[in-house]
Amino acid sequence: MLTEITEFDTIAAISTPLGEGAISIVRLSGEQAIEIANKVTRKVDLTQVASHTINYGHVFDPETDQNIDEVMISVMRAPKTFTREDVVEINTHGGIMATNLVLQTLLSNGARLAEPGEFTKRAFLNGRIDLTQAESVMDIIRAKTDKAMQQALNQLDGSLAHLIHNLRQEILEVLAQVEVNIDYPEYDTDEMTTKLLLEKAQEVSQQIAGLLKTANEGQILNHGLQTAIIGKPNVGKSSLLNVLAHQQRAIVTDVAGTTRDVIEQMANINGIPLQLVDTAGIHETDNKVERLGVDRSLQAINDADLVLMLLDGSRPLEAEDQRLLSLTQNKKRIIIINKMDLPQALEIEQLPTNIQQENVVRISAVAQQGIDQIEERIEQLFFTGIENTANNAVVTNARQVGLLKQAQQALEDVKSGIKNQMPIDLVQIDMTNCWDKLGEITGESAPDELITQLFSQFCVGK
Amino acid sequence: MLTEITEFDTIAAISTPLGEGAISIVRLSGEQAIEIANKVTRKVDLTQVASHTINYGHVFDPETDQNIDEVMISVMRAPKTFTREDVVEINTHGGIMATNLVLQTLLSNGARLAEPGEFTKRAFLNGRIDLTQAESVMDIIRAKTDKAMQQALNQLDGSLAHLIHNLRQEILEVLAQVEVNIDYPEYDTDEMTTKLLLEKAQEVSQQIAGLLKTANEGQILNHGLQTAIIGKPNVGKSSLLNVLAHQQRAIVTDVAGTTRDVIEQMANINGIPLQLVDTAGIHETDNKVERLGVDRSLQAINDADLVLMLLDGSRPLEAEDQRLLSLTQNKKRIIIINKMDLPQALEIEQLPTNIQQENVVRISAVAQQGIDQIEERIEQLFFTGIENTANNAVVTNARQVGLLKQAQQALEDVKSGIKNQMPIDLVQIDMTNCWDKLGEITGESAPDELITQLFSQFCVGK
Repeated sequence: MLTEITEFDTIAAISTPLGEGAISIVRLSGEQAIEIANKVTRKVDLTQVASHTINYGHVFDPETDQNIDEVMISVMRAPKTFTREDVVEINTHGGIMATNLVLQTLLSNGARLAEPGEFTKRAFLNGRIDLTQAESVMDIIRAKTDKAMQQALNQLDGSLAHLIHNLRQEILEVLAQVEVNIDYPEYDTDEMTTKLLLEKAQEVSQQIAGLLKTANEGQILNHGLQTAIIGKPNVGKSSLLNVLAHQQRAIVTDVAGTTRDVIEQMANINGIPLQLVDTAGIHETDNKVERLGVDRSLQAINDADLVLMLLDGSRPLEAEDQRLLSLTQNKKRIIIINKMDLPQALEIEQLPTNIQQENVVRISAVAQQGIDQIEERIEQLFFTGIENTANNAVVTNARQVGLLKQAQQALEDVKSGIKNQMPIDLVQIDMTNCWDKLGEITGESAPDELITQLFSQFCVGK
Repeated sequence: MLTEITEFDTIAAISTPLGEGAISIVRLSGEQAIEIANKVTRKVDLTQVASHTINYGHVFDPETDQNIDEVMISVMRAPKTFTREDVVEINTHGGIMATNLVLQTLLSNGARLAEPGEFTKRAFLNGRIDLTQAESVMDIIRAKTDKAMQQALNQLDGSLAHLIHNLRQEILEVLAQVEVNIDYPEYDTDEMTTKLLLEKAQEVSQQIAGLLKTANEGQILNHGLQTAIIGKPNVGKSSLLNVLAHQQRAIVTDVAGTTRDVIEQMANINGIPLQLVDTAGIHETDNKVERLGVDRSLQAINDADLVLMLLDGSRPLEAEDQRLLSLTQNKKRIIIINKMDLPQALEIEQLPTNIQQENVVRISAVAQQGIDQIEERIEQLFFTGIENTANNAVVTNARQVGLLKQAQQALEDVKSGIKNQMPIDLVQIDMTNCWDKLGEITGESAPDELITQLFSQFCVGK
């Protein structure tokens, strides 16, 4: 990891969402941040103020001498800043025009428009955070539930990075020991060297396996659980969708960026973000338009992480129920017997024998009874059996999963290499490969293109 | 105006637009702002930090002891703050969840959710700004061009308030003098008293007239100029619309809140915001659907502040041109002879004689020639003849216009009262009424309901 501070040019961007708000922030970072901000500021000399102070002033255009906005300017000198560079944050009056004019003035006076994620990239390049922490910054911004926030916050604290760093350290020590054994064979035997490698490979592999077990949970919290609600007509699909959606403790809809076409409805079930898809009926049909709806429903079931299969408790099991039960038998599902407020005509014994009893719950969507049982089942289906890894480290995205799997494959190669009595220097290469892959997760050994690509997915101003 | 600081409860709100951004601000104001913020903060003791400093810390939930976000906290102690109260601004990581959680934690620890505009309302109630300045804060946020920004900024500086304040002072002095004359008639005659009142009424009335002349310009800058582009088919309406819309120096479309249905296209013509409406053809028709389009076009012409009437220079004047010319003869309009890049067949002499030559321009929308002439004409049509009022005071909204007109009516009553030899104490009442109406503009004598109503139009967090 780079730990000395590299000097870059000075970048600027609007760091708050653009819109009609009370305050907007234009952020500057770089060697000349204070100097450039000072060039366009009146009523205060920013080069003279103490670090981490907020100062009243006017931003003006030096070319026309016209005032642009009355602002509050925060001056934060390196290294105790987000980027480890000098940072200036100009709080404007908000709104599109004031904010854009302030940014434009900074750009005409020596700053360069920041690329998406460039502030965080500098925090990484200047060694303040590693790649997993950088990723967690975006996870925090995109978090849809408090549990997802908590996970991102843990990662920001460096829990995953710390674990990976320790694993790499251990691998490095073994590699060093192996090197010694090779250089001074008189002190050691080949068996001892291979034993050392094998033991470490097994130990690290176990730890990686533990981490990978957290990946599912980690990714669900970040990206949400795709959930299809299915059942025959009038079984209460929409009622259930509404009840679940209204359980949510934080409002995540009605905000710019929410694509209603894709995410039908968002629910927050004990901190697990659910994307609820209400499917149309699934029945045999020759009608072309109906066929389209059926196909879309089948697709939704196919894509779903979880199926909520609704049955009508007030009626006996029917042919369409049977068909849907058989259609979803290989999915993670909860069988929900609705309408428990009516006289019951459906016996649990009627259900196929391959259904586990704990995955069957009785509810009344209309009377809002039994909903907590669904929530409990969801939590147990997706969030049990995870061995707690050291200091709560959790894998949260596909990039991390991919690299962990590559690292594990490298360890498999180490093991099979030893088993097949491959030359020790070839086994060393595999072990080094594992060390490299782990380093890519934290960015300690990540190639430049990867870093560029990763930060380009960030939002502007971060 | 209230000038001593009143103590209110502590309010909190998200002060940045809600969305996925790099930074969001949760703002607190009130006697307990620092105390409440400190209750939910770790790693720093906010009660001990100096005023106007930025501090690193963690916001946590004291109930669950869980961390909520890593934040930067600005502490600004009264009275040098936006509200003149203690103000704390918590810069969160951005995003919907982090920001909402921080706000919720503050609300469960003693803060109350701020009403729209309540921070600015406190700035007013605590005597830091007057009502015209408060209004300018919202004008800055909503400004669509740099010129509109400049106007709002002038008003924020208090130029209008200052002028109004002086007028009221002068009225007050006359009223006091009149009072003395009434109490001690031995020192003065009735004629001298009425002369004093009459002179002042005329003087103030003149100043108000001057201010009212700025109202048109002021409101255009704030709300934009409704502009209808008309002309027969294929005359180049869409080309002109595109050319004008692309002249704009700041991007104001593609932002949440822009209602595309109403504002067809926004253009920034030398700082004047134009709302361009491209009209369908206007011709006699029996077809119902076509009739709808024609009706809508006629409505657009009727609503327009400005009509851009396009003629085809490569063809002689036709019947439809004549009809449109006659239809718009009472509107502020610019006759634009398009297609100057082709051989010309239209003679200016063919145009009706009531058209002023300076309002006729020749352009080529396709070749983008002559467009600057249109811009010049627009500026001259709407922004000439304004006598500069003292220190750039400009009237910017309907509320101010209404009150100025009421104040002026009161002065007319003073004048006619004197002319009709009404008793002096009745004339005094009219003069006081004028003084009151002017006071409502700045808020010096505004009733509570008016103030409540005015601030409720503000955005949340301001």
